[in-house]
Amino acid sequence: MDTPILNKITVLKVGGAVVEDAASLAQLIQDFAAIEGPKVLVHGGGRSATALATQLGIETRMVEGRRITDDDMLRVVTMVYGGLVNKRIVAQLQTAGVNALGLTGADMDIIRSHRRSLKGRIDYGWVGDVDRADGERLAMLLREGITPVIAPLTHNGKGHLLNTNADTMAQTVACALAPYFTVTLRYAFEKRGVMRDPDDPDSLIPHITEADYHRLRTEGIVSGGMLPKLENAFQAIRQGVHQVKIGETILSE
Amino acid sequence: MDTPILNKITVLKVGGAVVEDAASLAQLIQDFAAIEGPKVLVHGGGRSATALATQLGIETRMVEGRRITDDDMLRVVTMVYGGLVNKRIVAQLQTAGVNALGLTGADMDIIRSHRRSLKGRIDYGWVGDVDRADGERLAMLLREGITPVIAPLTHNGKGHLLNTNADTMAQTVACALAPYFTVTLRYAFEKRGVMRDPDDPDSLIPHITEADYHRLRTEGIVSGGMLPKLENAFQAIRQGVHQVKIGETILSE
Repeated sequence: MDTPILNKITVLKVGGAVVEDAASLAQLIQDFAAIEGPKVLVHGGGRSATALATQLGIETRMVEGRRITDDDMLRVVTMVYGGLVNKRIVAQLQTAGVNALGLTGADMDIIRSHRRSLKGRIDYGWVGDVDRADGERLAMLLREGITPVIAPLTHNGKGHLLNTNADTMAQTVACALAPYFTVTLRYAFEKRGVMRDPDDPDSLIPHITEADYHRLRTEGIVSGGMLPKLENAFQAIRQGVHQVKIGETILSE
Repeated sequence: MDTPILNKITVLKVGGAVVEDAASLAQLIQDFAAIEGPKVLVHGGGRSATALATQLGIETRMVEGRRITDDDMLRVVTMVYGGLVNKRIVAQLQTAGVNALGLTGADMDIIRSHRRSLKGRIDYGWVGDVDRADGERLAMLLREGITPVIAPLTHNGKGHLLNTNADTMAQTVACALAPYFTVTLRYAFEKRGVMRDPDDPDSLIPHITEADYHRLRTEGIVSGGMLPKLENAFQAIRQGVHQVKIGETILSE
């Protein structure tokens, strides 16, 4: 028998590109509002941050897809992620009947992280690696009918904000909610899902277990950037998340 | 007999100058953390908004102390008030043991407003005049041990954020909480309080009732910019706020 709808929850992660364009944001608001039951949205905002940085004459430096975050860049991402992008989503969700509440990890101490230690010779600056999310507080908000909308910023508990990867935040939030809800973690994805052949839309793999995943990896069918995504997903499942959706592909036990 | 401490609440409004300077912000964090019982902080941030606007080549135009807020300026204040200033305060309050939650009026639909109608020939743009605050929701947060930190932004319920006067927001929040708590509304103030002679620090008027206020006004002892502040304060008291503090001056029934 299905778990009652109130005990099911969806944690949806959307990238910056979706929330930064007016048309795709409007579509997201509609789609997200249509999700039944309690839900959480985790968003990015990198393109707007880069655009504002450029306008302010601040250079954007990325290493392996991660933004080097010095004092000036932290100001930029705090303004863009915590202010511009987050509050726009919140205001628009309100009109769609979703009682949204914008959060960073610092708000209600929801998500703590620590500044990333130097890896090799790369100093990422004010970039945080997540330590924990407070599932109990989030569950309290959800029971009150509130929908958290989480910006990719955390704090270190010592008064400093930290720029944080939105995929990791979504995963941490999903795991923290697992003791309270049957959690579906959804990553919005530009492709239909995990494909046997990226060029063939009909080669979608609809369902992957961890055993399948190891086989697909050995066979070289999944590789490259897909590997950390799937590793991440199965880590969530090992920590109690019911299923992870990447496009139309469902990952579960 | 005094009301038990848990039923007393303080709503403190601080101007931009206090929160934008690192030293005065550190002092505010200490002072605010030391206030006993549940509390709410409402902050400004105008100087930082003007500074960012200048950096972005956006002209700041003020009419009667109010910021003309076109699309570009709304982006600026959303970033500065909702992001930069608000999240910094939240992160620092967390280190002082205050479980802060940053809010705009759009978050949890806490404060609704409508776009100011054209007055004379002045179009203020995306400036909101407050309609209502949701005291029940705020009381729920406060009972959970959460301290709302409110940025001077509201929404119109139609998906648009509005730049809103922080003094008015503090007053509206105080009134909305009056059915649930014995509310003290405090305006941080650059002078000791209401003075008989602005140049004589010993001329502080420690306590003013509405009858006193009418007499002081008739006698010309209070005038100019002090009048709207006091009008505002007594309006709050007529709507159930227990007392209003302006510096060391206490206004009450």
